[in-house]
Amino acid sequence: MEKTLYWQDESLFLIDQRKLPHTIEYVECKTYQEAIAAIKTMVVRGAPAIGVSAAYAMALAEKNNENLQQAAKDIKAARPTAVNLFWAVDQVLSGLENNITAQETAKRLHQEDIAINKKIGEYGNTVIDENDTILTHCNAGSLACADYGTALGVIRAAHEDGKNINVICDETRPVLQGARLSVFEMQQENIPVRLIVDGAAGHMMQKGQVDKVVIGADRVAKGGVANKIGSLMVALAAKRYDVPFYVAAPISTFDNENNIFDITIEQRDKDEVLKINDKYITKKETQVENPAFDIVESDLITGIITEEGIKKAL
Amino acid sequence: MEKTLYWQDESLFLIDQRKLPHTIEYVECKTYQEAIAAIKTMVVRGAPAIGVSAAYAMALAEKNNENLQQAAKDIKAARPTAVNLFWAVDQVLSGLENNITAQETAKRLHQEDIAINKKIGEYGNTVIDENDTILTHCNAGSLACADYGTALGVIRAAHEDGKNINVICDETRPVLQGARLSVFEMQQENIPVRLIVDGAAGHMMQKGQVDKVVIGADRVAKGGVANKIGSLMVALAAKRYDVPFYVAAPISTFDNENNIFDITIEQRDKDEVLKINDKYITKKETQVENPAFDIVESDLITGIITEEGIKKAL
Repeated sequence: MEKTLYWQDESLFLIDQRKLPHTIEYVECKTYQEAIAAIKTMVVRGAPAIGVSAAYAMALAEKNNENLQQAAKDIKAARPTAVNLFWAVDQVLSGLENNITAQETAKRLHQEDIAINKKIGEYGNTVIDENDTILTHCNAGSLACADYGTALGVIRAAHEDGKNINVICDETRPVLQGARLSVFEMQQENIPVRLIVDGAAGHMMQKGQVDKVVIGADRVAKGGVANKIGSLMVALAAKRYDVPFYVAAPISTFDNENNIFDITIEQRDKDEVLKINDKYITKKETQVENPAFDIVESDLITGIITEEGIKKAL
Repeated sequence: MEKTLYWQDESLFLIDQRKLPHTIEYVECKTYQEAIAAIKTMVVRGAPAIGVSAAYAMALAEKNNENLQQAAKDIKAARPTAVNLFWAVDQVLSGLENNITAQETAKRLHQEDIAINKKIGEYGNTVIDENDTILTHCNAGSLACADYGTALGVIRAAHEDGKNINVICDETRPVLQGARLSVFEMQQENIPVRLIVDGAAGHMMQKGQVDKVVIGADRVAKGGVANKIGSLMVALAAKRYDVPFYVAAPISTFDNENNIFDITIEQRDKDEVLKINDKYITKKETQVENPAFDIVESDLITGIITEEGIKKAL
């Protein structure tokens, strides 16, 4: 699997996830402002990957001798829903108070993210059975993280453990992370994978063709989990047809201060819905609601797979 | 609104629904085989419109002096799920036994379809309240019928009655009938409409932003309703958040012989999912499941709006 991101020659390199799987191309960020733009435009996406990128953005500000408090504020404003972004910047800030450079903290978080995902994979593997068909939504894979992945990390771990598993990815409109990224990751690993439209997940579960659902999370808080738009409807179908529904997420995704219904759900640009492959799917003046995330309520969640074990939803 | 279909100079003309809303273009069918191809490739779609087109296809076979029993068999095989197709062909066949030409029956069904939709609109209007926001899935509109529509007929009737209503259309992947057709119809009528991705319907209902759901049906039978893939997930969200869920469908959509779980769910070509605007969204060799319909179980349905009044699901 290609690297999601790396630090080289004092620059942050990000694989351009908007162009996958057709084109593999890296975007070089030399300034923290360029890193913010990459986060906003979804060159890089996925809560853990955004967190590590945000820490490296602080390292870029440090390298360029910029005001680090201002940089921290700007970086935190890049996207509002995933809590890892705020957490990673705060990690850098508290490192600085202890004379640890931003770059050192960023490199530590980068390495830790990989180790955490492997741990999540280990715990997650315990709930996956031989011959399971696992449905996942969006991409909580290697590309959403520094490497390995959370939800797809669980699938990788089960596969590496020799279990025969099948994966169903829904396409995850509007940005198609399921179709473009998760399908691609599974194909790279030779794990059998099928693609469905988002509307078909309920049908597959009603027919008994799904044994487990595993998704990632942008924030875990009291009352539920925020994750990519469409997660809620998958969870409702899983509940109806008794399919265990797991969330795989590092502890850094937990927000112990807020109720999940009080957080900001990012609304993104209408052209994300209206344009596919550079052409409008309907009249371009059409009004659109484009919430990027939704809330899966705690009673719909079987368990949250973390690097510290499987926990109950808050 | 442009006509969905018309009969002129001994030909059947069908608006090419694959090209809407960008291009308004009619396909002329001079033979029943051309009409079958148009049904299969979704030039025309929507259960009632397929029914009327099938009757006219019989009229084409009659005009060309073909074997009408063979034509009936071929036409019925065009698509497996919508029951109106079989019903309309059977109407023509029993007309023939009584010396009524296929063309006469087709024209009668065409006119009746419009009258039926107006009746459905009248009954449906009684469950719509002032200031309602109504969510609909796919297109059960004028374009799915000879005119006026079933689900969108209910919305039209409420609008014509002077009620202030708002409509939310989900895009309805893979063929985007919501984005391309339902949004277009509402815009033509100046009814306020917003587009969402399929995955966002649950979020909108969780936030209390939807007052009613109204969809169409391809078949009503014991146990539930078959309708466009994704209908089930909308129904599950409606159930969760206490949003009344109505199906609008003519009596010709009722199948009193089969259990809904015994009917054939059409599987369509994988490129319908993989290609949007003529470009692949992911690797073209990707495996796909593409069921065209799903089953909304009877306990999820508040009522079925027909030309004979509002009925309970079977």
